[in-house]
Amino acid sequence: MQEKLKEYARLIVEVGLNIQKGQDLVIACPVDCAYFARLCATAAYELGCREVIMNWNDDYITREKYLKASPEVFDHISPWVKALLNENAKAGSAFLHIRATDPENFKGVDPDRLLRNSKASVEIAEYRERAMSNFFPWCIVSIPIPSWAKKVFPEMSEGEAMEALWQKIFDAVRVADGGDAVSAWQEHLSKIKNRSARLNELHFKALHYTNSIGTDLTVELPENHIWMGGSEFDHKGVEFVANMPTEEVFTAPLKTGVNGTIVASMPLVNNGNVIEGFSMELKDGKIVSVKAEKGEEYLRKAIEVDEGAAYLGEVALVPYDSPIRLANVLFYNTLFDENASCHFAFGNAYPCIEGGQDMSKEQLIEAGLNQSLTHVDFMVGTSDLSIVGIKYDGTKVSVFESGMFVL
Amino acid sequence: MQEKLKEYARLIVEVGLNIQKGQDLVIACPVDCAYFARLCATAAYELGCREVIMNWNDDYITREKYLKASPEVFDHISPWVKALLNENAKAGSAFLHIRATDPENFKGVDPDRLLRNSKASVEIAEYRERAMSNFFPWCIVSIPIPSWAKKVFPEMSEGEAMEALWQKIFDAVRVADGGDAVSAWQEHLSKIKNRSARLNELHFKALHYTNSIGTDLTVELPENHIWMGGSEFDHKGVEFVANMPTEEVFTAPLKTGVNGTIVASMPLVNNGNVIEGFSMELKDGKIVSVKAEKGEEYLRKAIEVDEGAAYLGEVALVPYDSPIRLANVLFYNTLFDENASCHFAFGNAYPCIEGGQDMSKEQLIEAGLNQSLTHVDFMVGTSDLSIVGIKYDGTKVSVFESGMFVL
Repeated sequence: MQEKLKEYARLIVEVGLNIQKGQDLVIACPVDCAYFARLCATAAYELGCREVIMNWNDDYITREKYLKASPEVFDHISPWVKALLNENAKAGSAFLHIRATDPENFKGVDPDRLLRNSKASVEIAEYRERAMSNFFPWCIVSIPIPSWAKKVFPEMSEGEAMEALWQKIFDAVRVADGGDAVSAWQEHLSKIKNRSARLNELHFKALHYTNSIGTDLTVELPENHIWMGGSEFDHKGVEFVANMPTEEVFTAPLKTGVNGTIVASMPLVNNGNVIEGFSMELKDGKIVSVKAEKGEEYLRKAIEVDEGAAYLGEVALVPYDSPIRLANVLFYNTLFDENASCHFAFGNAYPCIEGGQDMSKEQLIEAGLNQSLTHVDFMVGTSDLSIVGIKYDGTKVSVFESGMFVL
Repeated sequence: MQEKLKEYARLIVEVGLNIQKGQDLVIACPVDCAYFARLCATAAYELGCREVIMNWNDDYITREKYLKASPEVFDHISPWVKALLNENAKAGSAFLHIRATDPENFKGVDPDRLLRNSKASVEIAEYRERAMSNFFPWCIVSIPIPSWAKKVFPEMSEGEAMEALWQKIFDAVRVADGGDAVSAWQEHLSKIKNRSARLNELHFKALHYTNSIGTDLTVELPENHIWMGGSEFDHKGVEFVANMPTEEVFTAPLKTGVNGTIVASMPLVNNGNVIEGFSMELKDGKIVSVKAEKGEEYLRKAIEVDEGAAYLGEVALVPYDSPIRLANVLFYNTLFDENASCHFAFGNAYPCIEGGQDMSKEQLIEAGLNQSLTHVDFMVGTSDLSIVGIKYDGTKVSVFESGMFVL
């Protein structure tokens, strides 16, 4: 186990972040996962990291704050948090996010407090914008904690659930006994690259989604959109992998060019609450109505963060035979669940257009990309999902049939 | 056990910090002690705390940094740490320090890195100066961690050592099964107040220390010095207790009025290293030579931080029958060990003179008080320590005989 943990840590700093000599690394990590942050810190120093800076968090303390702190606290980001994120973003530090949280940590929290806190994130725009445009390398990974493992495997004991979730995670991130995870990832990334290259060649004007649970949606794409996936490049040209695992290829939709109905195919864990059985109608890009069997209030607040929160910002394709999907587990963690399913995000768009990484916010808006303080992925893929690509000359090309890539 | 932990947390926020409605609380805590920080956070919110802000730390990550980070890292305090400390200091937030560390965490670390880091603390002067002058309430407490417990009780198993150290700590902070720690502290604090009141009445010009291990020292006191101890008051007049436990009464020496030899009576743990068997010569206040059987290099660097580091900043009296002394354990933690023994500190003086809390740095220097970036307590009390007070008219009054208060 210790060897696999070390291999996972090495994979993260070498492939996920590709730490360069003299670079700083900011690790966000729950205090209960300190043992893993320590392995990552040591692995980073081995690559010549200048300094590892810890940004610890704790589910309990955070929940206490949301339940008991004074309400005005949620209208601002603390000056020290701003300094930690904005200063390191400007300096080009690498950011590692070790996500491990109780999926229902904010159950019962006043949704208004979550909304106010989301709105306050405008104060860390420097950090957010540089993250979205890949100015610095960043990587999101997860490790199990008991509250999360029990949500995924409720029928197991805590110990069994932890072990089972570790195994699912190791499988998803290609860490195996005696295996070389770094090589496995190089091969995997090149497959994803081929997929996005094929989509870029086809240069679709729009995609039309349909399936039997009610999704019927047309998504226009900006004229100069680019499909991306696998690895990305920071402003110095250093390759990194922003999500581990990652199975998707993705681009940005045309903000005002999305029309129809989306029915979610999996629950969504957003901001410590589970939203289930939901659907939305979109008109000229805007989410004009939402319904949810559970957590509707939290979904409504999530699309109210700002004007752009009610528009889509990401179109991502994941085949129904993705290894994460085949694991046949609902992870209650978007990092995994989005890699089991085609998905969209509402909120901010990544600059997935030609030259987008160097464009100003205004230029990106001009190019038809959505801007928002928020970015929330949600899953729509099903075993019968069909996606038809529509080219500028009206030609139709089947992209997905029965939930699978057919290109 | 859980009940005693809760009682300890309640004692800390009610008596140690005396949290006021609407006040913020900054808790510095090792990640491995999160369970206790959580209890303190909950207890603080019960008193109407506005927001609990966590400043986590980790022995392993910190040691890795001192061993492996780039050297220039130690010349500055990170902007976000400056913001966290300075902004909260200015706002009058309460600061809780949960200290739990391996006494030898920095064994083998280049002493120059520790020195550079101490010098860099000039960048958090705003915080340090407001702490020293009690602008905001602050409180230092400790809880056991395995590495520390094993240093204190090397012959025990880790589990036994943890249990034994918890018991010693509960005894020292007056937390007992079914007892009311808050009332016990009120009684204790009033005893200490009586002791400092008596010393203030006597208004000594100097103290003369002698014992059989070689200490022979005359310490002049500033004309308007004040003996303090037990509780203190922040700038709003709110009473708090800066150290738990606390058994001492203390004042500031006249910076240039200390002459003779000091022989330490206990090891000193400073900055993650143990310094043992040490002595120093002082002339006109300045430490002109030091010797140590172990850790001499670390001691030399500690008094080199700045000009004031080589002068005394605190004179503290603790009888040889203090409960901490009677526990008959070397804690390898100054918070406890200084309350087992008469001690001095080299480095910065608390403003223990009339009106000192409202004086500028320049006025404090003018009044004869030492100023420094550092403040390191070290123990000198023995069972045969004699201290004679010398009044302005030359009268001599015995203050300590055979290590005990005789006033």
